[in-house]
Amino acid sequence: MDYNKLAEELHLKHHGKIATALRDTRTLGRDELSAYYTPGVGHISRLVADDPARLRDYTWTNNLVAVVSDGSAVLGLGNIGAAGALPVMEGKALLFKYFADLDSVPIVLDVHDADSIVAVTRAIAPSFGAINLEDIAAPICFEVEDRLKAELDIPVFHDDQHGTAVVVLAALLNACRVTGRDMGGLDVVLCGVGAAGTAIIRLLKQAAPGMRITGIGKQGSLHAGYTPLSAPKRKLLDEGLIENRADLSLADALVGADVFIGVSAPGLVTTEMVRAMAPDPIIFALSNPTPEIFPADALAGGAAVVCTGRSDFPNQVNNALVFPGIFRGALDNHVRKITDAHKLAAARELASQVPNPTSDRVIPSIFEPDLAYRIASVIV
Amino acid sequence: MDYNKLAEELHLKHHGKIATALRDTRTLGRDELSAYYTPGVGHISRLVADDPARLRDYTWTNNLVAVVSDGSAVLGLGNIGAAGALPVMEGKALLFKYFADLDSVPIVLDVHDADSIVAVTRAIAPSFGAINLEDIAAPICFEVEDRLKAELDIPVFHDDQHGTAVVVLAALLNACRVTGRDMGGLDVVLCGVGAAGTAIIRLLKQAAPGMRITGIGKQGSLHAGYTPLSAPKRKLLDEGLIENRADLSLADALVGADVFIGVSAPGLVTTEMVRAMAPDPIIFALSNPTPEIFPADALAGGAAVVCTGRSDFPNQVNNALVFPGIFRGALDNHVRKITDAHKLAAARELASQVPNPTSDRVIPSIFEPDLAYRIASVIV
Repeated sequence: MDYNKLAEELHLKHHGKIATALRDTRTLGRDELSAYYTPGVGHISRLVADDPARLRDYTWTNNLVAVVSDGSAVLGLGNIGAAGALPVMEGKALLFKYFADLDSVPIVLDVHDADSIVAVTRAIAPSFGAINLEDIAAPICFEVEDRLKAELDIPVFHDDQHGTAVVVLAALLNACRVTGRDMGGLDVVLCGVGAAGTAIIRLLKQAAPGMRITGIGKQGSLHAGYTPLSAPKRKLLDEGLIENRADLSLADALVGADVFIGVSAPGLVTTEMVRAMAPDPIIFALSNPTPEIFPADALAGGAAVVCTGRSDFPNQVNNALVFPGIFRGALDNHVRKITDAHKLAAARELASQVPNPTSDRVIPSIFEPDLAYRIASVIV
Repeated sequence: MDYNKLAEELHLKHHGKIATALRDTRTLGRDELSAYYTPGVGHISRLVADDPARLRDYTWTNNLVAVVSDGSAVLGLGNIGAAGALPVMEGKALLFKYFADLDSVPIVLDVHDADSIVAVTRAIAPSFGAINLEDIAAPICFEVEDRLKAELDIPVFHDDQHGTAVVVLAALLNACRVTGRDMGGLDVVLCGVGAAGTAIIRLLKQAAPGMRITGIGKQGSLHAGYTPLSAPKRKLLDEGLIENRADLSLADALVGADVFIGVSAPGLVTTEMVRAMAPDPIIFALSNPTPEIFPADALAGGAAVVCTGRSDFPNQVNNALVFPGIFRGALDNHVRKITDAHKLAAARELASQVPNPTSDRVIPSIFEPDLAYRIASVIV
């Protein structure tokens, strides 16, 4: 299937992907307009001005997520700017609607430093019920999310980080069942310690503090003397979340490891490297669209479970498995902060949707009926 | 009809007024999602990043208006802030959809100085096809609109100013026909030289430069020595758009005048004052919900035509007569700046929808079929 061609056909046919609609679908007369707009709406505005918590009763914010991006790290395209990012963010709004019946508005920002992204998002925040940060480059994304979470009283969630982390944890829980392993005893090598990589490390260590994780950057294994060592990476070392192992290549680090997690670049892993891992290794080759190693090559090296980011192989690690449900739950259950406990619960709920996991099925399909609503039920 | 009660019922029943919907209403499978989202959407993003003018082909911006307000001058409520303003802006989004099938997103801003409003609106502008500024207090609204019009290449239109001005001009064109007057010979008294008042003065003088307009503020007639004389008011005097007449009360100014236009405060005009105007005077008592003079009292003073802002009297001056059509036309016809020529054309088109005007009908109803599309046809 030529998805570029189909994308062009469908986008041109519909002139975009989303629209607005009216909740009251009747023919509206003078009385209804006088209630929905002036003079009646003045009464509603006064009620909300007196108690902004009532926004959720009287406005669409009860069901509304802003998808906010500055276009600095869009899919595999990198820093393509605000306009270029809009088709992706509108696509995300489509997924919110399709999988969780959430209203969603794509907001692309023509500003790119942390202060400005925070200031603009904070300024428009009263318009929305929740904020999904998307495709903002590391390390700015960490500061933006931390500050907005602290300053706003609506849910703020950077999906590239935490959505990915939740799905990886869910898949790893089931991969451990398939291979008879205990999460707390795993030796993990994670390659690509950026936005998603950092969040995966933090969530895995929350789930299983005994797990040992070696972080791999462009110059090999992360350690106290690694150069350049960004502040977020240094924090991972300082907090003991990754091992302090000097001067290992990716191939060195993989020798005897139980799990490879790649959120890095195409083709970094070979069949030989997989063969050097512990028996029945677990491979997450999440670089997209071209993985660190293709499933056939990983299986040839003895891999017991292989996950990728692609829909044309088994075990697709796809954020759409969780972000619709996490926001559905946060809005329905009046959750103001999405915490680590929520992410852990979402991962366990997602894993439990596959009662009998196998090598080819450690996570469910995004088309599993009611999946978003099941995830939502644990965001409380 | 108790509109407060109906407003509360309808808002609570539907939990707000608008929602999002998908343009492609089919069941979407893996192929469609791969085209609307990753990997296919990457191709679309690259096309748009290379040529942002293609946003209108591939995203919903071709049909999308942001309704932007800082909540500083909301209806009759004044400065009620961002949250309080949201029900009104969502109501405006409902009107856009209902009358012109335009998608519209309410954006309320938690910043209130001109620099910040401009910066935030400019930052989010690539997300939208046009910007409807709403309920921003004078004099900040003038600077905000001027700067955004200069800096953005999408239509920016402050409806409180220009929507009102267009409807007043349309009604005045027909009121002149009803009373056998020539616009260029009119003596006009305009009370309340704020956002709407200033725009009305400017548009009327564009339409009929010979018209004489006396501006009335809280301390009487505007003139070079008036205190305080804000910069926008001074400009009106400097440009000769209003007469330089010292020390007249509203009652003084009305003696012998042809037209009263009030965008001011309830009850300022009496039957006696109307009686002192020229024969068959024309009264626009647009203070809402309580007009400067009620129609019965104006008619008792000999008024030939009375317009108000209310739906329960004839001749309702309602911005909804024009803003849906102006934005519909601007987006459909790829108009980047809404100019005075567009406003004049819209007013003439609106007036022409009443082929045989009478005292009770100088402007059409907002429910006139296809009205927005007729207005849109002249925004080229």
